[in-house]
Amino acid sequence: MAIKIYGSFRSPFVMAAALTVYEKNQEFELVSVAFKSPEYLNNYNPFGKIPAYQDEDITLFESKAIMRYVATKYEGERAPFLLGSTVGEQALCNQWLEVNSHSFTPPLMEIALSFFRTPEGGPSVVEEAWEKLGKVLDIYEARLSASKYLAGDCYTLADLAHTPLFYVLKALIDEEKQNSLTSQRPHVYSWIQDISSRAAWKKLTARPENIHYKQR
Amino acid sequence: MAIKIYGSFRSPFVMAAALTVYEKNQEFELVSVAFKSPEYLNNYNPFGKIPAYQDEDITLFESKAIMRYVATKYEGERAPFLLGSTVGEQALCNQWLEVNSHSFTPPLMEIALSFFRTPEGGPSVVEEAWEKLGKVLDIYEARLSASKYLAGDCYTLADLAHTPLFYVLKALIDEEKQNSLTSQRPHVYSWIQDISSRAAWKKLTARPENIHYKQR
Ligand SMILES: N[C@@H](CCC(=O)N[C@@H](CS)C(=O)NCC(=O)O)C(=O)O
Ligand SMILES: N[C@@H](CCC(=O)N[C@@H](CS)C(=O)NCC(=O)O)C(=O)O
Repeated sequence: MAIKIYGSFRSPFVMAAALTVYEKNQEFELVSVAFKSPEYLNNYNPFGKIPAYQDEDITLFESKAIMRYVATKYEGERAPFLLGSTVGEQALCNQWLEVNSHSFTPPLMEIALSFFRTPEGGPSVVEEAWEKLGKVLDIYEARLSASKYLAGDCYTLADLAHTPLFYVLKALIDEEKQNSLTSQRPHVYSWIQDISSRAAWKKLTARPENIHYKQR
Repeated sequence: MAIKIYGSFRSPFVMAAALTVYEKNQEFELVSVAFKSPEYLNNYNPFGKIPAYQDEDITLFESKAIMRYVATKYEGERAPFLLGSTVGEQALCNQWLEVNSHSFTPPLMEIALSFFRTPEGGPSVVEEAWEKLGKVLDIYEARLSASKYLAGDCYTLADLAHTPLFYVLKALIDEEKQNSLTSQRPHVYSWIQDISSRAAWKKLTARPENIHYKQR
């Protein structure tokens, strides 16, 4: 059975799972789902979220669990070693994956979603999210001044998890805001360029299912 | 150098990191920190959160990264295999660790923190959190009817991550609320009893640094 990914490229988490599959040189079918249908809840993800993943061995949900599984299963002997290639690199990869979940993604998603609906807490919530994101990127700038990638010298899942999130954000915000993110953060700038110019990411965004967000 | 854990047992995330160390039969020193001090931000965690971890090889933050590192480093050949012992179990351990982060912890922490400060969104936020937590535990009930632990037949980090969170919650809420969590969920009830009666957890909560929350 070929790899199936359930969801849509509207979700950066679906893209992150799919990108991992491409980084390991595998193919997948993207299957759209009604994610609150009993069928999906019962067979794929009881929490009713996308992505879910299926291959001949397993059905799985939660994007980072899918990413780890794909990276482990197809790690082989071929770079990139997406989980880190030493115990120390693995630990830092895990650390920055958690940073992605707990510090980077929440303000970024708050900003992104504000283009589609008014935030519950009003516009000040979005302003706060921008401030938080800026502080987080200052920490990334310091980290990326010391090493090329988040976990060290090599590209890992910790970097990969960020690519779709920057993509969504950059498609939505205007040029001035884009510049404000990186103009004082040259290492963050180069890193975004680097992770966004990988062959696997280009192949993914060239798929017909890719969403082309309209700039406001 | 002995293992050092920075933080206080006031934080369930610090307890989860410490519990992993005990499950692998290692010892640690608990070091209290001023977590917004330049010293802590520069040397341990630029995000100013606890726990941080240090041993002779590494300095690390983010509790789940610490847990994975300790579990890997001391996995040895001795159970419990905290990361799962097959690729499939590992994948499910990772999946339920993500569920812990994204679905279980947020409503639980909302409820727990409401005992210490009025929530920004008012009391309705706490009511909603109770409702969310109930729905999440319904999914756990279904899962734990099919397997003894979250990732399968064996105790893993996915279970471990929940122990300190249930502990904090149960110490704060009254008996009626406690019963309402588990009375219709017998498998969740047995699972909480099981994970809370492990030797490593008993040893941890017997430490003098343990916080004895006052019941309301
Ligand atoms: N932690 C989850 C997040 C998944 C998630 O939030 N997906 C969104 C789309 S971006 C979704 O399915 N939303 C539907 C809903 O929450 O009802 C993961 O990484 O897979
Ligand atoms: N995702 C982090 C969460 C850590 C966390 O939120 N710790 C709290 C204590 S429970 C903290 O340090 N709070 C201080 C703050 O946020 O300023 C982890 O798992 O380590």
